[in-house]
Amino acid sequence: MASTRLFLSAKNAAALDAELMSSGGFSLDQLMELAGLSCAHAVYKSYPPDQKNKVLVIAGPGNNGGDGLVAARHLRLLGYNPVIYYPKRPNKDIYNRLFTQLQNLKVPFTEDFESALQSTDQVLDAIFGFSFHPPIRSPFDAVISLLEKSTKPVISIDIPSSWDVDSGPPEAGNLGSGFLPQVLISLTAPKPAAKFFVGEGHRHFLGGRFISAEIAEKWGFELPAYPGTEQVVELPVAK
Amino acid sequence: MASTRLFLSAKNAAALDAELMSSGGFSLDQLMELAGLSCAHAVYKSYPPDQKNKVLVIAGPGNNGGDGLVAARHLRLLGYNPVIYYPKRPNKDIYNRLFTQLQNLKVPFTEDFESALQSTDQVLDAIFGFSFHPPIRSPFDAVISLLEKSTKPVISIDIPSSWDVDSGPPEAGNLGSGFLPQVLISLTAPKPAAKFFVGEGHRHFLGGRFISAEIAEKWGFELPAYPGTEQVVELPVAK
Repeated sequence: MASTRLFLSAKNAAALDAELMSSGGFSLDQLMELAGLSCAHAVYKSYPPDQKNKVLVIAGPGNNGGDGLVAARHLRLLGYNPVIYYPKRPNKDIYNRLFTQLQNLKVPFTEDFESALQSTDQVLDAIFGFSFHPPIRSPFDAVISLLEKSTKPVISIDIPSSWDVDSGPPEAGNLGSGFLPQVLISLTAPKPAAKFFVGEGHRHFLGGRFISAEIAEKWGFELPAYPGTEQVVELPVAK
Repeated sequence: MASTRLFLSAKNAAALDAELMSSGGFSLDQLMELAGLSCAHAVYKSYPPDQKNKVLVIAGPGNNGGDGLVAARHLRLLGYNPVIYYPKRPNKDIYNRLFTQLQNLKVPFTEDFESALQSTDQVLDAIFGFSFHPPIRSPFDAVISLLEKSTKPVISIDIPSSWDVDSGPPEAGNLGSGFLPQVLISLTAPKPAAKFFVGEGHRHFLGGRFISAEIAEKWGFELPAYPGTEQVVELPVAK
């Protein structure tokens, strides 16, 4: 098991994000673009677009959903056939623009999650990120319940949705306790819940290549070396 | 010689950019982030950061300069030692933020172009882009003059600065007529001046991977296939 120094708590992840967008000089557009791009690349490394794979992107109402929408745009340009389920669309400029970009690429939006899940090759879980707090509101409770029962490969952005960012999966018997994605893409740094992401053949990537060694040092997490110009670096997963 | 269908004129490049940022739903932050990232990757492919190369980034006052500033940030994260010459800094939010980001990364800004040129390993020419019109104003006239005489490898973003976007290098004897970079990074699509970018060992990349096949078709240029998740694709250069 890796040392706790590797992990960025929910509280610190929020504070670091706020710092990047204030004194750091970053815009949400910039950070989300690089984060979403890295998510698309992690999907590519895990499930190459050999057969123009259908990827069902489940976008939540916040920035995790925004990362998913950016990823969907890049997946389309990478040769995938993304389909978006985006039931709660806040009327915020950046989300409206991401929506427009996807419409221009003729990426379909669906309102029938269950059918879309049945016909997809992979699922990109962009429902909740590091600011998630239970309870899971409708319709995402039903979505999580279906994902628990599904055998479709799931790639989760930042945390497996329904998991507590710091403490991990819900207790046995609760909604989400049976949800374990095949691939986890941690953004900026793995959150503590990533300790519970285990299993043979499962893959863990780190993305969001906008963090300097100095920032990592200041916030107390390790920054693994990205290979070459890659936007993701693969991390070990315990069996 | 490639067909003219490969090229995007100065007028059409401006119109396409305007379309991307209006009905396209893109922000300048998003487009510049992807453009600048691809420029950094083209530098990496041409001059890998084996010895923590010094790269002198010459940033002009417009969006080409902004692409250069984004590239400089990514170059720093890729292991280079960028140094910025940015003599005309418009007081515009996005440029101020890019400046802040570079300051936070401790990327030095210099006011002594001549000394910086002497001590650098490579030069990233981010002075003028597709909206360039002569004459070249001070201090960039002196910069172009020094680049003409220098033997340092130059990587130009979108067009070799001083060249006319549509008609190519200035006539013999005029400022810039002796300026031929080693590497050209065309953004979105090569501009007509790229026809004059020739020479053995010279390399031409296309970057700015945000264009769909439909957009390329609509604007009448060809979109070469980017390999895998690469942000640049190399184009042939006539000897």
